[in-house]
Amino acid sequence: MQKTDIASLGKFNLIAHLTATVECTQPSTVRGTGDDAAVLHYGQAETLVSTELLLEGIHFNLTYTPLKHLGYKAVVAGISNIYAMNATPRQILLSVGVSKRFFVEDIDELYDGVKTACAQYGLDLVGGDTTPSMTGMTIGITAIGEAPKEKIVYRSGGKKTDLLCLTGNLGAAYMGLQLLERETRVFDGQSDKQPQLQGFEYILERYLKPEARKDIIDTMAAINLTPTAMIDVSDGLASDVLHLCRQSQCGVRIYLERLPIASETFRMADEIHIDAVTAALNGGDDYELLFTAPLSCYDTLRKELQNVDIIGHLCDASEGAFLITPDNQTVELRAQGWK
Amino acid sequence: MQKTDIASLGKFNLIAHLTATVECTQPSTVRGTGDDAAVLHYGQAETLVSTELLLEGIHFNLTYTPLKHLGYKAVVAGISNIYAMNATPRQILLSVGVSKRFFVEDIDELYDGVKTACAQYGLDLVGGDTTPSMTGMTIGITAIGEAPKEKIVYRSGGKKTDLLCLTGNLGAAYMGLQLLERETRVFDGQSDKQPQLQGFEYILERYLKPEARKDIIDTMAAINLTPTAMIDVSDGLASDVLHLCRQSQCGVRIYLERLPIASETFRMADEIHIDAVTAALNGGDDYELLFTAPLSCYDTLRKELQNVDIIGHLCDASEGAFLITPDNQTVELRAQGWK
Repeated sequence: MQKTDIASLGKFNLIAHLTATVECTQPSTVRGTGDDAAVLHYGQAETLVSTELLLEGIHFNLTYTPLKHLGYKAVVAGISNIYAMNATPRQILLSVGVSKRFFVEDIDELYDGVKTACAQYGLDLVGGDTTPSMTGMTIGITAIGEAPKEKIVYRSGGKKTDLLCLTGNLGAAYMGLQLLERETRVFDGQSDKQPQLQGFEYILERYLKPEARKDIIDTMAAINLTPTAMIDVSDGLASDVLHLCRQSQCGVRIYLERLPIASETFRMADEIHIDAVTAALNGGDDYELLFTAPLSCYDTLRKELQNVDIIGHLCDASEGAFLITPDNQTVELRAQGWK
Repeated sequence: MQKTDIASLGKFNLIAHLTATVECTQPSTVRGTGDDAAVLHYGQAETLVSTELLLEGIHFNLTYTPLKHLGYKAVVAGISNIYAMNATPRQILLSVGVSKRFFVEDIDELYDGVKTACAQYGLDLVGGDTTPSMTGMTIGITAIGEAPKEKIVYRSGGKKTDLLCLTGNLGAAYMGLQLLERETRVFDGQSDKQPQLQGFEYILERYLKPEARKDIIDTMAAINLTPTAMIDVSDGLASDVLHLCRQSQCGVRIYLERLPIASETFRMADEIHIDAVTAALNGGDDYELLFTAPLSCYDTLRKELQNVDIIGHLCDASEGAFLITPDNQTVELRAQGWK
């Protein structure tokens, strides 16, 4: 198929083309794309706003990332921050910078993924920006949501006897990425191994098309459980739990054998001689929720939240932040650096 | 002075460092930086949100753009969209991607400009993102504001006999950019001309440190004048008036001799043999406001709005969009392409 040069459309026809099929259905959206700014009305609820920058070569590699999945993932990365405040995302704004190697059909694919995510999570796409770029693709995603004041959960509300809880499992996206990187090296002839993706569908999906934990936020609302503190795990558990601890002025104990790690994650880690626990602690891109709840919630957590593990507990700040191994050794938790 | 490697701080210490002196003073800011999302409360007012992406090599050239000015300008570019809805910006989120050639001190300079703009316009910096980049600097700016529902001015409200009004003057930033580009060529030895910035302070400032037209929005509020339609002129008058016309389903007549062009703009245009009118129509980066008002506002506009020119009027859509020269020739207005 002949692809369409973006310059032949021009910036404004491109925007019109991309937003032609965008419909706003959220009651809080007064006016969406097409003006200088979007207009929203949240009434008495609080408005939550978060923004993420995704850069080619840092956050994604288009050699193995389909643009549709990238669009979907960008939305997930944005709204995960809103869920992490125990709030409901309602709108997104999407900015895209593209170099000359991209065509209109490429941007369409990216938008397809964005629109799929919007349909999946009940979001309106209400604005954004498109611009040429000198090098590669740049994506800016702004997510906006709402919550009643008393339901908002900050990173700072943890208490020193609270349980530390985690949704889903860790390290899967990171191991999916390692698999894709290995396949790329094979493809480039830098390795004599055959690409082998079969049997690793789960970790690939966790990397390429992650989901935000709307389900957990919905369940917690249904059972009337409000965490004391919460953060989304996107930079790796070690980094993110330290943010929660610092802001809650607490220390933490995490029990290594309680860390949820999927069997495919273990299997891939084994294959490429990486420690699965290291992947779980520092992998990133998990988009799971880490939260704290009072000890009194123990039974409720165990009975009502199937996809949540209690992985440890907060403690006094003076006791520091440590991982406890099954043979009772302690390992200090450290954030990873500027990649 | 020894500059500080960003990697030596790490992402989260960098964010903590950059936001350490950020104070929130807007009543609508419930919680600013430091959590997964900012929390805002606008009560019964509408919330306005807009986002812009600024990329090195496309929107700015760091050879001649001081980082402090760039930070200031990024904020202006963002909030200009909010003013263009006749609303008041209250918060911004700033995302920055930086490659290895930038140091902590460079990001500090950028933030200095951002903070200066926040102080100037009464804005809280409530969030954002920082990330490494493979190539150059990327800036994402999200601006959030508020307005009572009945005061919001869309692009779509223009009527076919409305006056077309413009704040300030056009083409100055574009000519400032040409001057800086010329100086760069001189510096690179590609030209034998001497760099000569003296006498061109105004156009340089218009390019390097533009202002958003808060003053006009304030004055219009004071005299109780609400435009029928409005847009900010950031892509060039020709592009932007066509947006307003299309959304208002009107045509337009602009009178060439009414186009406000500063004397320095004319002088620079003369020096480098560029048509000043072309610069005014297509230059971009003006951050002026283009609005329409009923004929009955003519006297008020002339008496009360010193910095506003009436440059033409809307007409029936069937009459098209034309520029009228002093000798009554008509030139069809066309938007410029994807740069």
